[in-house]
Amino acid sequence: MATLFTGIKQLLTFAGDAVPRAGEAMREIGLVKNAEVLVENGLIEAAGPRSVVSRHRLAKKARKVEVNGICLPGFVDSHTHAVFAEPRLKDFSMRAAGASYQEIKAAGGGILSSIGAVRRQSRRAMAEQLAARAAGFLACGTTTAEVKSGYGLSLESELKMLRAVREAQKLTPLEMLPTLLAAHSVPPEFSGDAAKYLAYVTAEILPKAAAEKLAVFADIFCEKGYFTPEQTTAYLKEAASLGLKPKVHSEQLSNYGGTRAGIAAGVLSADHADHVYAQDITAMREAGTIATLLPASNYYLGLTKYPPARELIAAGVPVALATDLNPGTCPCWNMQFVLSAACTHCGMTPEEAFCAATVNGAWALGIGDRVGSVVPGLQADLAFYKADDYRELCYYFGASQCSMTVKKGKIVHGGR
Amino acid sequence: MATLFTGIKQLLTFAGDAVPRAGEAMREIGLVKNAEVLVENGLIEAAGPRSVVSRHRLAKKARKVEVNGICLPGFVDSHTHAVFAEPRLKDFSMRAAGASYQEIKAAGGGILSSIGAVRRQSRRAMAEQLAARAAGFLACGTTTAEVKSGYGLSLESELKMLRAVREAQKLTPLEMLPTLLAAHSVPPEFSGDAAKYLAYVTAEILPKAAAEKLAVFADIFCEKGYFTPEQTTAYLKEAASLGLKPKVHSEQLSNYGGTRAGIAAGVLSADHADHVYAQDITAMREAGTIATLLPASNYYLGLTKYPPARELIAAGVPVALATDLNPGTCPCWNMQFVLSAACTHCGMTPEEAFCAATVNGAWALGIGDRVGSVVPGLQADLAFYKADDYRELCYYFGASQCSMTVKKGKIVHGGR
Repeated sequence: MATLFTGIKQLLTFAGDAVPRAGEAMREIGLVKNAEVLVENGLIEAAGPRSVVSRHRLAKKARKVEVNGICLPGFVDSHTHAVFAEPRLKDFSMRAAGASYQEIKAAGGGILSSIGAVRRQSRRAMAEQLAARAAGFLACGTTTAEVKSGYGLSLESELKMLRAVREAQKLTPLEMLPTLLAAHSVPPEFSGDAAKYLAYVTAEILPKAAAEKLAVFADIFCEKGYFTPEQTTAYLKEAASLGLKPKVHSEQLSNYGGTRAGIAAGVLSADHADHVYAQDITAMREAGTIATLLPASNYYLGLTKYPPARELIAAGVPVALATDLNPGTCPCWNMQFVLSAACTHCGMTPEEAFCAATVNGAWALGIGDRVGSVVPGLQADLAFYKADDYRELCYYFGASQCSMTVKKGKIVHGGR
Repeated sequence: MATLFTGIKQLLTFAGDAVPRAGEAMREIGLVKNAEVLVENGLIEAAGPRSVVSRHRLAKKARKVEVNGICLPGFVDSHTHAVFAEPRLKDFSMRAAGASYQEIKAAGGGILSSIGAVRRQSRRAMAEQLAARAAGFLACGTTTAEVKSGYGLSLESELKMLRAVREAQKLTPLEMLPTLLAAHSVPPEFSGDAAKYLAYVTAEILPKAAAEKLAVFADIFCEKGYFTPEQTTAYLKEAASLGLKPKVHSEQLSNYGGTRAGIAAGVLSADHADHVYAQDITAMREAGTIATLLPASNYYLGLTKYPPARELIAAGVPVALATDLNPGTCPCWNMQFVLSAACTHCGMTPEEAFCAATVNGAWALGIGDRVGSVVPGLQADLAFYKADDYRELCYYFGASQCSMTVKKGKIVHGGR
């Protein structure tokens, strides 16, 4: 039976003349007031003004869900490290008390503590924990999330992380797209030899992950002291040849060349972009590469510099926003906070921020023809908020305003 | 019948040898693991280790509520402007698009838009809107909030705001303490003549608010272009003589002398403190004045400077934290975000932040002998969170982790 979501004060469809395409810059929001959305078989059957949708042949007999708020496509969070065994509370306390990163590291903190915890955790426990976190995403209006490995850094533990994502997928309606991020950092066993570790990843981890179809994407951290631009291009090309779509962590801590190295391998998105220069921006525009900005991590790190959203948008680069949920630099899973940070600290308008968190997030995962906008024929992934005006979601901050979330046509959060 | 909250992984009591006192600096958190809280007649009957509380004579027959999380005293949010007719969405969009404060003001935005909207709104609509906002506070673990007037700036509209708080109190279990903030700004009718407006407030508004017992506190914005330190002291002394406890907005935008001007009139707290100097800190310590910090507003304004919590704490000044919820500089009602901002941007430890948001917030309202800690005989105002460790509430940010809120012994949010 069809379901009719009615009483929607404002609906943002992001539907232009056609389904949005990858590589488009920022799209019009497609605001409809006094709207309805009709859903059948998990897909959007019709969406638009009440006067139009209510005349649809399926509308009369449809189950009616009264909304009294606003409706958006479910957020597509295209960059998360949502599998991590433990929050880094000790590091957090040390940092609040004034400890430096070096002191925290010397006390056994930082990524090393996450590596240890992930290696110790069972796959089952990992999957259950991820499913519990997924409930937090759904409660905040996110219906699709990318999830990276990258805290195992050994064949066994990297595959365990990816298998845990697959296992968790059976426990939660949140749609998760797994990414192999074995090239996140060089583990202690390789004592700083990045080339040797990357050769191991390429020979051992990448082919197994590809053969078992455990990941949709391959990602690498291109940064001084981690992996070089040359290593980045070669590794991502190898990953692409095995069917994993390339992604890159680039220009996060410095301008190091990761963006262009990623583009040379055909990345869907270049993520972070805090320190992009003009030549990186030009390269992204020319390649149609999406710049995925993660401003919640800048907030958490207490940085005063935020990613240069205005320069990117002015140049015509498609910008996506994501949480970067991770235990070290961004313990946040609410995309509404990311909207706030983008408008408050990156100079993005609410309209740009919403587009970046939905359509462009979907295209950063290559699935914008399936999710990320409210267009007939697309998946019925919707989120509803207690608000009168969509801008309230960027304006109020620090708590979720989401009252109901719908995934593939089913109510998976709230709704009573 | 008594109620026993059981299965508490961690309880923070803030109970030392005795009920905390006003003017104490930062208090120990009083961490109890595997705890229970026994409540009867709206008061805390017993709180502590399960092994002790479960032997209490009332425990066996008590209604049991299984918690599986952590328990804190309800947050006491001691500084809010929660009565405002409309969010300032137009200003927000203009600012995100790069407009200056002057341009926003020229377009009819800023405090003038709030004054217009508040003057137009009916008291009934105002009360209902406030009650709806109160539900948001309760959902985030806040059980007591101060609420200021200050967007009416005329006899009629200031009293309307305070009467709306009184009316809203009948609609929500959130305990609200009203503050007269007629001295918030100089309204257009007085064309910049602060002295003339303050004389009007003193002659017309203050006595009526006092006579009708509409406010517990009187507050004033001491800042260049608003009210001088001399006016601040004189006005607050007059307010105190009429039974309204004095408070002050001081050193928010510059070091202007408001803190010491307030102390000369016996303020309970000096709020904002972004630009306090050594002499202000010394004066606060000597007077036992609470410094109420509002770091969420710094986040929203995109400031890089945050209030100097470390200097204040090092000097022995009692520090409180509050949201500053208001439409212009802080659209945030979740004290958990304030904890995050305090730890992430002000160098406060989680333990200091919790103390500042509970006990010290209560003393900033003069009611620390009734709420703000989990001590037998005090009001049973409790909040429960889905977490294993209390530090998670400061560490994760952007969403609420509160699963249940209890006011005067009654479950007023969640709990299913």
